Amino acid sequence: MSRRYTLGLDYGTESARALLVDVESGEEVATDVMPYPHGVIDDRLPESGLKLEPEWALQDPEDYLLALRTLIPSVLQQASAKPEEVVGIGVDFTACTVVPTDEAYRPLSTLPQYRDRPHAWVKLWKHHAAQDEADRMTEIARERGAEFLRRYGGKLSSEWLWPKIWQVLNEDPEVYEAAARFIEAGDWVVQQLTGEDTRSACQAGYKGCWSADGGYPDANFLAALDPRMRDLVGTKVLPNVMPLGQKAGELNASGAELTGLKPGTPVAVSVIDAHVAAPASTMVRSGQLLMIMGTSLCHLALGTENREVVGVAGVVKDGILPSFYGLEAGQAAVGDIFAWFTRQGVPAYYTEEAATEGISVYHLLERRAAALKPGESGLLALDWWNGNRSPLMDASLSGLILGLTLDTKPEHVYRALIEATAFGTRLIVETMRRQGIPVDEALCCGGLAEKNELLMQIYADVLQMELKVARSSQTCALGSAMWGAVAAGAQGGGYDTIQDAAERMAGLQERTFRPNPGNREIYDALYEEYVKLEQYFGEGGNDVMRRLKSLKHS
Amino acid sequence: MSRRYTLGLDYGTESARALLVDVESGEEVATDVMPYPHGVIDDRLPESGLKLEPEWALQDPEDYLLALRTLIPSVLQQASAKPEEVVGIGVDFTACTVVPTDEAYRPLSTLPQYRDRPHAWVKLWKHHAAQDEADRMTEIARERGAEFLRRYGGKLSSEWLWPKIWQVLNEDPEVYEAAARFIEAGDWVVQQLTGEDTRSACQAGYKGCWSADGGYPDANFLAALDPRMRDLVGTKVLPNVMPLGQKAGELNASGAELTGLKPGTPVAVSVIDAHVAAPASTMVRSGQLLMIMGTSLCHLALGTENREVVGVAGVVKDGILPSFYGLEAGQAAVGDIFAWFTRQGVPAYYTEEAATEGISVYHLLERRAAALKPGESGLLALDWWNGNRSPLMDASLSGLILGLTLDTKPEHVYRALIEATAFGTRLIVETMRRQGIPVDEALCCGGLAEKNELLMQIYADVLQMELKVARSSQTCALGSAMWGAVAAGAQGGGYDTIQDAAERMAGLQERTFRPNPGNREIYDALYEEYVKLEQYFGEGGNDVMRRLKSLKHS
Repeated sequence: MSRRYTLGLDYGTESARALLVDVESGEEVATDVMPYPHGVIDDRLPESGLKLEPEWALQDPEDYLLALRTLIPSVLQQASAKPEEVVGIGVDFTACTVVPTDEAYRPLSTLPQYRDRPHAWVKLWKHHAAQDEADRMTEIARERGAEFLRRYGGKLSSEWLWPKIWQVLNEDPEVYEAAARFIEAGDWVVQQLTGEDTRSACQAGYKGCWSADGGYPDANFLAALDPRMRDLVGTKVLPNVMPLGQKAGELNASGAELTGLKPGTPVAVSVIDAHVAAPASTMVRSGQLLMIMGTSLCHLALGTENREVVGVAGVVKDGILPSFYGLEAGQAAVGDIFAWFTRQGVPAYYTEEAATEGISVYHLLERRAAALKPGESGLLALDWWNGNRSPLMDASLSGLILGLTLDTKPEHVYRALIEATAFGTRLIVETMRRQGIPVDEALCCGGLAEKNELLMQIYADVLQMELKVARSSQTCALGSAMWGAVAAGAQGGGYDTIQDAAERMAGLQERTFRPNPGNREIYDALYEEYVKLEQYFGEGGNDVMRRLKSLKHS
Repeated sequence: MSRRYTLGLDYGTESARALLVDVESGEEVATDVMPYPHGVIDDRLPESGLKLEPEWALQDPEDYLLALRTLIPSVLQQASAKPEEVVGIGVDFTACTVVPTDEAYRPLSTLPQYRDRPHAWVKLWKHHAAQDEADRMTEIARERGAEFLRRYGGKLSSEWLWPKIWQVLNEDPEVYEAAARFIEAGDWVVQQLTGEDTRSACQAGYKGCWSADGGYPDANFLAALDPRMRDLVGTKVLPNVMPLGQKAGELNASGAELTGLKPGTPVAVSVIDAHVAAPASTMVRSGQLLMIMGTSLCHLALGTENREVVGVAGVVKDGILPSFYGLEAGQAAVGDIFAWFTRQGVPAYYTEEAATEGISVYHLLERRAAALKPGESGLLALDWWNGNRSPLMDASLSGLILGLTLDTKPEHVYRALIEATAFGTRLIVETMRRQGIPVDEALCCGGLAEKNELLMQIYADVLQMELKVARSSQTCALGSAMWGAVAAGAQGGGYDTIQDAAERMAGLQERTFRPNPGNREIYDALYEEYVKLEQYFGEGGNDVMRRLKSLKHS
């Protein structure tokens, strides 16, 4: 009997990845990665060379199709797999990444008449130029008592769908007019494969103010933003929202031609790249916390009741797994802080020493920081280099280091930065627990979980929890493959539920990080200090961080 | 008619300097510097190689004599000056730097039987190993309501005379027994030149708890420290304290032989190296503030009444100029913070860029920081890298940086550090003014005043005062030379008062730093934030810095 494979497509910020997985064993049989030829477009438009404003971040959707054409044949060939052996396809994507298209779903940026119009291009998730629109929309939602606001901690992000669309209307109404659709890039890739315009409940829920009960914001609300937006839902934004695990459609002729796979192959509804890691990290029940640890840190948990959770960035029914309320919290910068420090704060003599030893600066720092005892640095930091996402949802906050002396060395600062991010995670966990969201098991995935042992041990010590790490080092692509198998269903050679898929395809590493009981007391004491600073600077004791930011921009 | 010269000897931490000055014109005709061959001894004793404990800092008194033998002939020769043309000699020295000697004023460390006994060596001002003794002495002074305590802001320093002597008694009673004298190194150099044991009112007042009215701590107090110390004053510490400007004595035969100068040449009472800069910077009246700006920052002012000034480290009658109450305040680290940052915080790519341009990292930082507007960094710091000397007198405080983001660059931090030290100075000035000490003119000297234009401009802007810089770049040696001229008196070819000497010999640079009115508002706002943080972290709002230090040492 021939093998059965499922294909996961993972679209990240800088590159796309394909992963071919054995449905039965979960074995990852072949993978390939392609950096986007156009990368992140944040300086000038390709061809026209048009200069972009600050805070812009675009992409070229042709790169997404090139990934399909390149990566899928590559993994099939590596595995000597036949197209008919692929039972399903899943797609995850960064979000909210929005493609404006014409009626035929051709991205406007690919049409000659719009090629030099920045608003015709794909707005990447980290396009932050719609801050005014986000602020104004939050205000209007608050004035109107919009119910959806409370699901997002009372504040909407400039990264989300409506501010991004509204910015197009405000700044280039012609492009707005020309756009027959605004569609999440993940949903657009699914459309290119199947011909179907489906909208992922995960993306619509976390980024589009959609809920299973209430749908999208209604016409009156959208008209309050701008009367021209009144009928947006149903025209430019189709309300065909589907929960995860659904089959969005089947490969059509052009999709088959793009990929080299068989027409009729089931394609799953798309998923946000962070959330797709959940089943691949064995997250299937309430009580589990998943930490996706990379440049930022995303905390996912599953609730069983529809309730507001203060300090959590989003609560979306079916947003992570069907039939659960998916909770998402996060820290806006974690790995990014270490990268900043390594770039901007590590002195030349460390760089030289690392070079002499033939190791990276990270390794040198990690080794020296690991030799320190908790508290030995004498430092305490607030990890708000990119603001605070959870629990304060305040981008105007900033980072702090305290305890500096003439004897402070780079490894002291490095360790204090790691500890600060650990305290930030503990605060999120305690915020959840205090509101009745159980956290009894900690699952981890992502680059930091894979590579930074010191960080993992500090997190275990600070959280006083054993940390388990996903077995796969490509949990996103694996998660997508698992959703592909669920779209196929047991009858189609896959699985009927994501739990079934997780049981066979997902797993954890044997090695775990256990808390060192000897460090508990000191970390409890330091955490108490962290919370005291967090309250003082973050909750109204002293708004100096906000005032400094406004002085900075005045 | 032949010229008249006065000779200034300036003993710093790392080196000694001699300066020959024309009495009439103030022209600095010749100078020479000698780094101490034994430098600061803080690792191992010379010869025996005995390992020292942490916080120890010793010197070899032979280096001081070698400086006399080397530097004085050198400057005479450079100037083609004859010994009889030198009308007076002045000496300044770091303090409190203590020499234990035998009855003949031979340093114990030079005697073979004590050569390998660390306590027989000179304890340099920055020997910090007598902290226990200082703490205990403060406690006893408080319990006994000792009057002198209030002159030092309620706290005694481990750098001072009595803790240093007490440490000898506690740790090596034999050396204590063998010491016929404990004498400030400045006074010891004067003794070597003249044969007289005089004690400088400046050093006794700022470092020995002495006052013109009350003398040294009395026998009962010293007995409360240790009964064996009861009779210290009058035996090992002679009470022959003399105000500045007095002639301590005249060169005797051995002094003449040491220096190549004429027997009978007047030698002034010694002065602390910081305080001697005052007349050389034209400080002669109440209302003037002198800032001696180097690794740390020393603020001197002259009061006309005997009153307690809270937050000022020392108030000593005749301690700076005769007939004034000399006020000393300070910031424990200023240049040291920038040196720390340049060493520990400036990344490799800046070092490389500076090297490519052929400039120092300081210059690169200064240039970039100068291009920033006030507030543009978004950062605010507390300049407590070495604790806070004035106004809080709290070594357990530590540094803080706030406002950090992923966009923070090294020049942002550098500018924020400069601004923080400027705010620290403003706080000291406002603390003085609030207590009726006028500050209407700001005089500056020292390396930072000479070299760091950006810093000077920021200080002018933050203080909203014009800053004037001493003309001489060797204000300490010049000040000593001026005191030498006063020791000679007008009849002896010098001057009768230090004011007369200042009028002829001291001066200011033509260039001054004037406050930029456009920066006033923003610096007022930032200073307000600084004070708010200072109060919160320094005055009981949140003692986290102290707690972190005790965790660090636990």
